[in-house]
Amino acid sequence: MSEDIRASLTDKLSRGNVLAKECPSRAVLQDVTSRWGVLILFSLLDGTHRFSELRKKITGISEKMLAQTLQSLEADGFVLRIAHPVIPPHVEYQLTEHGIEVGKRVAELVNWIEINIADILQSKNQYVHIKSNTVN
Amino acid sequence: MSEDIRASLTDKLSRGNVLAKECPSRAVLQDVTSRWGVLILFSLLDGTHRFSELRKKITGISEKMLAQTLQSLEADGFVLRIAHPVIPPHVEYQLTEHGIEVGKRVAELVNWIEINIADILQSKNQYVHIKSNTVN
Repeated sequence: MSEDIRASLTDKLSRGNVLAKECPSRAVLQDVTSRWGVLILFSLLDGTHRFSELRKKITGISEKMLAQTLQSLEADGFVLRIAHPVIPPHVEYQLTEHGIEVGKRVAELVNWIEINIADILQSKNQYVHIKSNTVN
Repeated sequence: MSEDIRASLTDKLSRGNVLAKECPSRAVLQDVTSRWGVLILFSLLDGTHRFSELRKKITGISEKMLAQTLQSLEADGFVLRIAHPVIPPHVEYQLTEHGIEVGKRVAELVNWIEINIADILQSKNQYVHIKSNTVN
């Protein structure tokens, strides 16, 4: 096997493929883009937040879903949970380095949608079914 | 009201806010980042696909979920459905201009995860609960 083929094979193996159902990158993508995961990453990009601050910021999120989603983002290494041993308990959440990288990309998507929402709503439902006469 | 305040107000009103549960931008974000929506947008960024091609490319997707997700992306104006009136029916899907914009941002996120998956898996579960002695 030539060096080139070997290098390209190693490169292939070390990169994930979200289109393959068994690839772990698909599971990570799904945590990141989950209903609440995407909003939590986007919110934490602004800095450290307490649980109650996140709850207030992301309207409509339940206490259970916030806790559960923070846990899975923590398990993926995107969110850091900082527990201050005081009474009453004081817990803060912040993005890790990986979390910041992933959060920045989530924010690009969110910002584009927020900025273009008027345009999106205008074209929503105005799509046409193009019918061509091409015979294949 | 000064021109400046008026301009900034108009700007505010015309931009969505995904953190507000009633804002339509949140619903659009959720279609785009749904379990299968994100994989369909990513796949269609490569060009026009037939239904069966998408089904084969995105392993694990059911016929029902593919049809349903394509429909909601079509209703949001991100996917164009092209039905050729031939027998047997020949239907193709492609991204609209909005779809390409949103798809490019989805791809940035997907690519980052695919490229860094080895690193992500390594740090997964190695996170620590930092306990500080700070009293607030």
